[in-house]
Amino acid sequence: MLTMEEARQGRATEALAAVAGDENIAVEKLVALVASGKAAILLNNRSTRKPMGLGPGLRTKVNANLGTSSDASSLDEELEKVDAAIAAGADAIMDLSTGGDLDTIRRAVLERSTVPVGSVPLYQAAVRSRTEGKGMVHMTGDDMLGAVEDHARDGMDFVTVHCGVTREVAEHCRRARRLADVVSRGEAFLMEWMSYNKQENPLYERYDDLLDIAREYDVTLRLGDGLRPGALADANDPAQIAELTVIAELVSRARERDVQAIVEGPGHVPLHLVASSVELEKSLCDGAPFYVLGPIVTDVAPGYDHIAASIGGAVAAAAGADFLCYVTPAEHLRLPDVDDVREGVYALRLAAHAADIAKNVVGAREWDDELSTARKALQWDRVIDLSLNSDKARAFRDASSPADEELCTMCGEFCAVRKMTNVREGEGE
Amino acid sequence: MLTMEEARQGRATEALAAVAGDENIAVEKLVALVASGKAAILLNNRSTRKPMGLGPGLRTKVNANLGTSSDASSLDEELEKVDAAIAAGADAIMDLSTGGDLDTIRRAVLERSTVPVGSVPLYQAAVRSRTEGKGMVHMTGDDMLGAVEDHARDGMDFVTVHCGVTREVAEHCRRARRLADVVSRGEAFLMEWMSYNKQENPLYERYDDLLDIAREYDVTLRLGDGLRPGALADANDPAQIAELTVIAELVSRARERDVQAIVEGPGHVPLHLVASSVELEKSLCDGAPFYVLGPIVTDVAPGYDHIAASIGGAVAAAAGADFLCYVTPAEHLRLPDVDDVREGVYALRLAAHAADIAKNVVGAREWDDELSTARKALQWDRVIDLSLNSDKARAFRDASSPADEELCTMCGEFCAVRKMTNVREGEGE
Repeated sequence: MLTMEEARQGRATEALAAVAGDENIAVEKLVALVASGKAAILLNNRSTRKPMGLGPGLRTKVNANLGTSSDASSLDEELEKVDAAIAAGADAIMDLSTGGDLDTIRRAVLERSTVPVGSVPLYQAAVRSRTEGKGMVHMTGDDMLGAVEDHARDGMDFVTVHCGVTREVAEHCRRARRLADVVSRGEAFLMEWMSYNKQENPLYERYDDLLDIAREYDVTLRLGDGLRPGALADANDPAQIAELTVIAELVSRARERDVQAIVEGPGHVPLHLVASSVELEKSLCDGAPFYVLGPIVTDVAPGYDHIAASIGGAVAAAAGADFLCYVTPAEHLRLPDVDDVREGVYALRLAAHAADIAKNVVGAREWDDELSTARKALQWDRVIDLSLNSDKARAFRDASSPADEELCTMCGEFCAVRKMTNVREGEGE
Repeated sequence: MLTMEEARQGRATEALAAVAGDENIAVEKLVALVASGKAAILLNNRSTRKPMGLGPGLRTKVNANLGTSSDASSLDEELEKVDAAIAAGADAIMDLSTGGDLDTIRRAVLERSTVPVGSVPLYQAAVRSRTEGKGMVHMTGDDMLGAVEDHARDGMDFVTVHCGVTREVAEHCRRARRLADVVSRGEAFLMEWMSYNKQENPLYERYDDLLDIAREYDVTLRLGDGLRPGALADANDPAQIAELTVIAELVSRARERDVQAIVEGPGHVPLHLVASSVELEKSLCDGAPFYVLGPIVTDVAPGYDHIAASIGGAVAAAAGADFLCYVTPAEHLRLPDVDDVREGVYALRLAAHAADIAKNVVGAREWDDELSTARKALQWDRVIDLSLNSDKARAFRDASSPADEELCTMCGEFCAVRKMTNVREGEGE
């Protein structure tokens, strides 16, 4: 039985119960959310990785995009990135490889990861067709769906499928004359394919077949927003919203067949539009879990896009986004290295946590209070242990030794924290 | 004549006209804003540094706090930090030194800086009393005001004065039993002083004398929020709001005497309270320019507090805050080094810019569109030149060379940008 099927009959699968326990949320509440499609449990019924939940009342999750490219395809480095992302606290990872031996890399990543793994099977189909010496435009619908099935069979927990760009939506995009046009790789393949073949997007046309595959493995579909804006100038344009409208219909069709579906979102969004873009997804798609790529709130920050994404991600998650894709400092400049991966995860975990405090997620604020209590008591070891990234906090502190070990070099002997403790003691407190 | 006096007579001083030009805002509009106290022009009538404006419709500004401590007091390093902060784009700096020869450091910083400089003269008074061998509690009101006058005479453009903590407000704070109590150094001095002397805060009691000093040099008063929260748990508590209420009265008294006054704000603030805390200041203090310290949106991010501050700063500035104080990655752990200063400035400039787009500040979005246009055309040199920190962007790109120089190693040959250009050409565009 599928997770959603069970939930609709009022039963919690083992995975669902485990997620409810992790999140400190009542099982019945989670069952109802999953039954309605407003929460999703990421898992694959052939894998033994720990399942992960997304939805209202649950912790905001962070995903780390990994994967090789034609310029950099070392399996060892990929596995190092998997370890680094998970050690930094990523809740999920994606293998977006397009370089090297994709089957080997995918299986190794799936074996290595302890958190749910996602992919974009269309990349595989595209690389395969190229390897077979035929142009990508000669891929068939079977090639595309076959790649999805291969990934699901290997144990993928969620797959991104760009079903929302119909020929009509693509025409919207053409007319829009966007500043950045299409910036999704999967989408660019499909736009080229549709333009050449003059046929409907097979991932849309054969959506029922996709749902069959998803049902076989209980895999969650992530409905990709191929027309996400790639520049602030393109945010919330008719092309993007037209695609989202199609996605809303596909969410509903997935639910009819007990397939869990989550929706992918932008991208590049000006700060004042971030919250409303989340609200729009939630209302259009009947509360389906929302995954956003950042979003980044300015285009001018190459080298600092992890910060631009933290701003957008925090505001998005506070407005209801459930799942944040990290952005690394290397975004728009190069494939991230291991350190970039780590920094990206921490930056977005910070954003997710700030949002969880704002959303009043169970247990979120307690962490801050614990750390601040230790800070007030000048318990440095405890402050560092409780820090988001203890290694980094320790390195900062160790690099600059105060004369008085109880203090730090910022204020030295004029430490307000210690002074106030003395003042209160003088007041007889 | 004072800047505000002139503005009230409908005239623009040279400094005001220069600021209006820099900001691309009509002079008459800025004159009216300054006349009402809703905008301020930071300057000192004895200095020749470039004046800087704060207020609605103007660019959000970023301040970098510098200064020695008893643990680290190298003048050379301070000057290096001044240069680094300004090179990174800081709109103002503060010399908050408490270690070494304060007079020498202050004058050297004032001479070196091309942007407005601020200080907290109370630190100087406290250090002086300690140097003279008397306890800080034995400082007199004359000592405190004398330090303000010394700083103004040396050319300081703005001074932070903790006038808002009356004995009554301090009593609020004592009763509040906050998690982090008082975290402002200046405030901690005053709390100790009031607790020991059982007298009113001289900076409040002798506010008219302070206004005389400010009038002499046309210096802007920054009304310090000594009771800003030092932990999320203390945000928006009665002590903080009681102080803000006193500050509102002091803003009004400053305006009666044509003294420009801006208000200092938190601190540690949960994300969902950031916008409303700005709105509260704007309504309570009749639109006085608002300077916020970050704010940081979680307590758990030592080592990443610049990111926590970017999130809070972006949201605060979008809600109307005018002036963001940077927070560096070293915050809460050690005195920032030169690199920390640089990273703090860039992180908060990013936040300020994201907010300026949201607030529709003249010219803000054009920067993003220019960069994205270059990105779409794969003009890498131009993308890097237009980046917030070109050196950093270039270093990322140079560290990982793509096989095809037109692309980057992120997507390699599967670059969506290039593919779409080809698709559009195939479509006859």
